[in-house]
Amino acid sequence: MNPEQAYQELLRRFREIALIDSIEAVLGWDQEVNMPPKGAQWRAEQSAYLSGLAHRKTIAPEINDLLCAVEESDLVSDPVSDEAVNAREWRRSYDRAAKLPTEFVEKYSRTASLAQHVWAEARAKSDFSLYAPKLGELIELTKQKTEYYGYEDKPYDALLDEFEPGEKTDNVKRLFAGLREELAPFLQELVNAPKQPDPAIVEDRDYPVERQRILGQMASAAYGLDYASARMDVSTHPFSTNFGPGDQRITTRFDPRNFGDSFFSVLHETGHALYEQNLPDEFFGLPRGKAVSLGIHESQSRTWENLVGRSKAFWQYFYPITRQMFPKTLADVSMEDFHFAVNAVKPGYIRVEADEVTYNLHIMLRFEIEQAIINEGLPVEEIPATWNALFKEYLGLDVPDDSKGVLQDIHWSFGAIGYFPTYALGNLYGAQFFAQARKDIPDLDAQFAAGKFEPLLNWLREHIYQHGQRYRAQELVKVVTGEPLSYKPLMAYLRDKYSKLYGLA
Amino acid sequence: MNPEQAYQELLRRFREIALIDSIEAVLGWDQEVNMPPKGAQWRAEQSAYLSGLAHRKTIAPEINDLLCAVEESDLVSDPVSDEAVNAREWRRSYDRAAKLPTEFVEKYSRTASLAQHVWAEARAKSDFSLYAPKLGELIELTKQKTEYYGYEDKPYDALLDEFEPGEKTDNVKRLFAGLREELAPFLQELVNAPKQPDPAIVEDRDYPVERQRILGQMASAAYGLDYASARMDVSTHPFSTNFGPGDQRITTRFDPRNFGDSFFSVLHETGHALYEQNLPDEFFGLPRGKAVSLGIHESQSRTWENLVGRSKAFWQYFYPITRQMFPKTLADVSMEDFHFAVNAVKPGYIRVEADEVTYNLHIMLRFEIEQAIINEGLPVEEIPATWNALFKEYLGLDVPDDSKGVLQDIHWSFGAIGYFPTYALGNLYGAQFFAQARKDIPDLDAQFAAGKFEPLLNWLREHIYQHGQRYRAQELVKVVTGEPLSYKPLMAYLRDKYSKLYGLA
Repeated sequence: MNPEQAYQELLRRFREIALIDSIEAVLGWDQEVNMPPKGAQWRAEQSAYLSGLAHRKTIAPEINDLLCAVEESDLVSDPVSDEAVNAREWRRSYDRAAKLPTEFVEKYSRTASLAQHVWAEARAKSDFSLYAPKLGELIELTKQKTEYYGYEDKPYDALLDEFEPGEKTDNVKRLFAGLREELAPFLQELVNAPKQPDPAIVEDRDYPVERQRILGQMASAAYGLDYASARMDVSTHPFSTNFGPGDQRITTRFDPRNFGDSFFSVLHETGHALYEQNLPDEFFGLPRGKAVSLGIHESQSRTWENLVGRSKAFWQYFYPITRQMFPKTLADVSMEDFHFAVNAVKPGYIRVEADEVTYNLHIMLRFEIEQAIINEGLPVEEIPATWNALFKEYLGLDVPDDSKGVLQDIHWSFGAIGYFPTYALGNLYGAQFFAQARKDIPDLDAQFAAGKFEPLLNWLREHIYQHGQRYRAQELVKVVTGEPLSYKPLMAYLRDKYSKLYGLA
Repeated sequence: MNPEQAYQELLRRFREIALIDSIEAVLGWDQEVNMPPKGAQWRAEQSAYLSGLAHRKTIAPEINDLLCAVEESDLVSDPVSDEAVNAREWRRSYDRAAKLPTEFVEKYSRTASLAQHVWAEARAKSDFSLYAPKLGELIELTKQKTEYYGYEDKPYDALLDEFEPGEKTDNVKRLFAGLREELAPFLQELVNAPKQPDPAIVEDRDYPVERQRILGQMASAAYGLDYASARMDVSTHPFSTNFGPGDQRITTRFDPRNFGDSFFSVLHETGHALYEQNLPDEFFGLPRGKAVSLGIHESQSRTWENLVGRSKAFWQYFYPITRQMFPKTLADVSMEDFHFAVNAVKPGYIRVEADEVTYNLHIMLRFEIEQAIINEGLPVEEIPATWNALFKEYLGLDVPDDSKGVLQDIHWSFGAIGYFPTYALGNLYGAQFFAQARKDIPDLDAQFAAGKFEPLLNWLREHIYQHGQRYRAQELVKVVTGEPLSYKPLMAYLRDKYSKLYGLA
């Protein structure tokens, strides 16, 4: 077969798959944002139909033949050419999909679907025993999946690789261990520091919802989110999604007493949307036009939420605007106190409410448990006790009940074991990229304080967004920063920022 | 082939087509309600992909074979059995689709797509000459289409049949002529009546939007729209759509000075949605579970908007609630004056703003012109003059420019010639059904005045909604009222109601 023709045919097929996936994104968004309750059943039919359609096209055996023709040709001689990048990642996804028997995929999907319902009930009743049997089934299937996929070292590698291509258990272990060794004592220093913030300033005062909405959209527009190709809506859990070139959606939720809950969600989802909005449109849905990995995606949401959005420079620009919107609520609050309040560090039970310092400890705990389950056969009924013991060790708290502990996250119930580490990897990548951006753009803080975010956005476009999946995450960080991924930039950033805030030496 | 197996296979295929169509409905709704402008191009790709997918499945030659097996069997011996009804309408749509060559369908679709843009520009500039060449092309293609479809009597029959299956030009002509003969002098009586309403009460006072929204939703919920399977949003042009069992969407728009514009749109779209919501779910997307025709659909929107929503009994119930919402705006307005204001009759240029009495005259004019174009070869450049002459004759007004005349409607620009008559047929069907409902439920007015709409809704469920397409429109009206469609019930209703309002003898 003519390799150029084969490549064109692959483009055609994968563009069609991307089109189908992008339609499913519309259905998924509407489900979370708008759908009336009785629409759920038919919506499930609609989504399943598109999933099935895309899946059948993904595993078509002709793809293998076409890929072989491309792989044996000169088209891929430069490993970072568009053709080589697309071929590499098409190969990866084809091989992975082809390794799973169809009956297994269906059984897995059915079990996960049931497990989600069981989990929701168990969480509402805070009773892990209701969830244990289904979770056990799902764990057995997940172990089976690692065997189908295969792995060199640890079974958990096969799962990690699904969400963070190329990442290895041992590497994550090493990074997390190094980080925890420095983070745990630093957290104790902060907890015991004489200077403490007043988090109630942002969490328990009057913040009329309509003005929260305006401020959130102002900030995201200031960051550079183009609202001619985006919109913001309300959903129970904030998320972002991409309907195609020129149409990104973010969501938030509003609590009329809590400014931070919505505002930082908006900045977080804006970070995701900026990445999607600045990927090369002409490669939409193809590897060359897709985000690198979940970890790199999260590095962007965390950058705009935390590294920018919780910085002093940002609030030098944005606090006067915020106070103008809430003149009574913030009459007695200085910029410094406000900035300290949005950076309050406090060990708590719930991951999604955690601050920058404690957040990674929540992830490390989940990573430990997932490894114990998959690599070491931790029995399902021992998971809650293991959780609670690790929680005490990492965060110093006694978990009062399972809904505030092992039952808080939905991820395992839909079979996403190996997903959590990408959140912490995102923090590491984000901090390492950001340190490099600071070197390349020395007056970054002065720009933020003047409301200018385009230099940072342009830097991210040039160094990250434009590449799509040209590099895997582990390579990208070397290309951009000259170093492999390390926990040190994150730790240095946290130490510097929070030492100043909490008045430590 | 085993007829029962063939029937099951047809069910499977047409359910799949309905599923695809229902996904496209979600895309179309989002496009009108939410989509940011830059999303338009990709959205067109998404919609075209689904249209193409559904179309290929609709014209698959196997459908003909399967249908033949069913049609030759006992399954269809009872002509109103589920099987016979489905087979009859599947045959109709298959044969119609099969008559059009694929290249013709594509050419038509491309021309219509371009014509819509040209129309929008011509309307903005109020310059028909910009539009004439494209409209001319579209008319030529439409004439070609009538030849592909074939017809017994007039070419226009082939177009009418597309939107109102079984309807004939001569029948519509007869109905419209009878109606106009009575309506035109009656309109003059109303225009010259000594008692006149003050339409500014509902069209030009302060009606805060949020309260308009609440009242609209209250009224539609009172009608019986189940908001556990529906929602209301805002769009430039109000419409309703159906995403599947348990998910109907209506839209409206708000003008803070005009109560009627939004409120009666909501009632209108609620009428459409009530029909969809009460079709038999188990036959969703199959003829047995679909609305009869555009005319019958419009009969339902018009019933709930006008026959119920502009009745005195309705406002006896709803005016106190309305006044409570707008206490200052309506402080000086009695229920009688309000009811008169929402029934103001005034010849105007714009169809979508027309009242119950003049509305049908707008349609008759379009029907005359469409016939002249298709059956009698009226040249495209003569359309504006013909429009203006007929407008003077029917409504007594000189059309000031084309944007208020021949350019006001989008329909022709997407090739929908033969569509307009269904609006007036809807008014006729609605009035005839409603007269029968009044006979069957003698205290209907007392119920409306008490806020009870379930008896009417149940009557409509029993006599219309539950049947899906069991009967064609022309048969349904006979089954329900014992008579073929007539203009007399509508005329009697208008004469009775408006004579009282305008103080005529």
